[in-house]
Amino acid sequence: MPTSHADGRVEVLALEGMPEIAPGDDLAAAILESLEGTPGALPLRADDVLVVTQKVVSKAEGAIVDLTTIEPRAEVVEFARRWDRDPRQLEVVLREARRVVRMENGVLITVTPHGFVCANGGVDASNVGPASGSIVTLLPRDPDASAAGIRIAVRERHAIDVPVIVSDSFGRPWRWGIVDVAIGVSGLAPLEDLRGTVDHDGRVMRSTIRAVADEIASAAELGLGKIAGRPVALVRGASFARAEGSIRDVLMPESFDLFR
Amino acid sequence: MPTSHADGRVEVLALEGMPEIAPGDDLAAAILESLEGTPGALPLRADDVLVVTQKVVSKAEGAIVDLTTIEPRAEVVEFARRWDRDPRQLEVVLREARRVVRMENGVLITVTPHGFVCANGGVDASNVGPASGSIVTLLPRDPDASAAGIRIAVRERHAIDVPVIVSDSFGRPWRWGIVDVAIGVSGLAPLEDLRGTVDHDGRVMRSTIRAVADEIASAAELGLGKIAGRPVALVRGASFARAEGSIRDVLMPESFDLFR
Repeated sequence: MPTSHADGRVEVLALEGMPEIAPGDDLAAAILESLEGTPGALPLRADDVLVVTQKVVSKAEGAIVDLTTIEPRAEVVEFARRWDRDPRQLEVVLREARRVVRMENGVLITVTPHGFVCANGGVDASNVGPASGSIVTLLPRDPDASAAGIRIAVRERHAIDVPVIVSDSFGRPWRWGIVDVAIGVSGLAPLEDLRGTVDHDGRVMRSTIRAVADEIASAAELGLGKIAGRPVALVRGASFARAEGSIRDVLMPESFDLFR
Repeated sequence: MPTSHADGRVEVLALEGMPEIAPGDDLAAAILESLEGTPGALPLRADDVLVVTQKVVSKAEGAIVDLTTIEPRAEVVEFARRWDRDPRQLEVVLREARRVVRMENGVLITVTPHGFVCANGGVDASNVGPASGSIVTLLPRDPDASAAGIRIAVRERHAIDVPVIVSDSFGRPWRWGIVDVAIGVSGLAPLEDLRGTVDHDGRVMRSTIRAVADEIASAAELGLGKIAGRPVALVRGASFARAEGSIRDVLMPESFDLFR
């Protein structure tokens, strides 16, 4: 059942009062409490989507590694020295990787077990714990399942089915900078396939597939910023189609991909 | 001077009542009129950004081609037949291209004169004119200048400096679907460089550059959709830095790029 947005308005609300999340914490409970504390968030609506950034999901799930426990292989020691990288972090990236796509110019791009192609395999040092510098987060093992868990908790509390996106910041070829994209979804179709539908002038739009979950993730990032320690946003009024949904729908099979 | 968004709220308002735009039309005047007709848009605020989609910009500037005037070269006739493409459109793409990045699997990816790497060089058939099927839009010749023209017109009318982004829908390697990104900017820095700034836990964030103009373009798309014929949105409350700005700041030089 598609949700419409007849009025063309979309709102992003960063949830207020989210606590620090540590391994084993109940992330869904923290989100439910923050929803209560965010003016205008409740009551939840049929056109709401919750966007939860990767780092709090990984922390809650214990998907973290202490770099002091990591012995880097010789290959990464050399690369790290040359490019001023932490060899232990690179070692973690390689251990997590299904395949290395590029390892040059100081950049390590891998295919993760989920099938994401991204810099450093999504292994991320910033914003985790105190400034000791030895803890990194890994991507959640099953980000769709992470999203589903939060969706179920929200539905149990508020009797409304709000889709959930787990987001992360990815770089792109050809352009500087990172944008937030979806790495897990539950309750919405991450792609909206408009192929064959008729546009505004009566023409057939033959090649348009909107990456709606990625755009919702990017919109959420605008409300969250990168410094303020706000990890969850409610995006209200976006056009999306309800479905069980999986981020696997977004991943291009290698046989179609011209850039690996 | 950075603009803050202390409250973590971002709003997208699709402008209402935009007319059809034809070559030679005054696009800025049409936007000013639509601002008047969109509840809540006025008064404009210091944290507003106007996002104008490529197609109306190209139409207003006459950056269109009638495919009935195009004689495709032999090379594209063969490729078009094999992959069920319009050879005249492919011919236009090649004439516009600085370089071909990929031409396989039915996909033609080029570097445009501006330096964008994109499918079909941004040459686009949908949503242009009546359903005759022979008119395509090219990218604006200088999308930063297109944005600047609209920005100046808004400043003259409303005595407030609202940054303008010209957006277009681009595909990405590795992921299905398109997202809207910035192809021209005026009045804001398209990248926000957080390298060296201290995050929430006191750690140095050494590698974060937010592609804020691209995220604003994606957020705008959520309000505009792809069918409704709404080409302009106001994005209110995003965090951005004021600057003259140029989309050239976003384009990765070939020497850094691992995927050409």
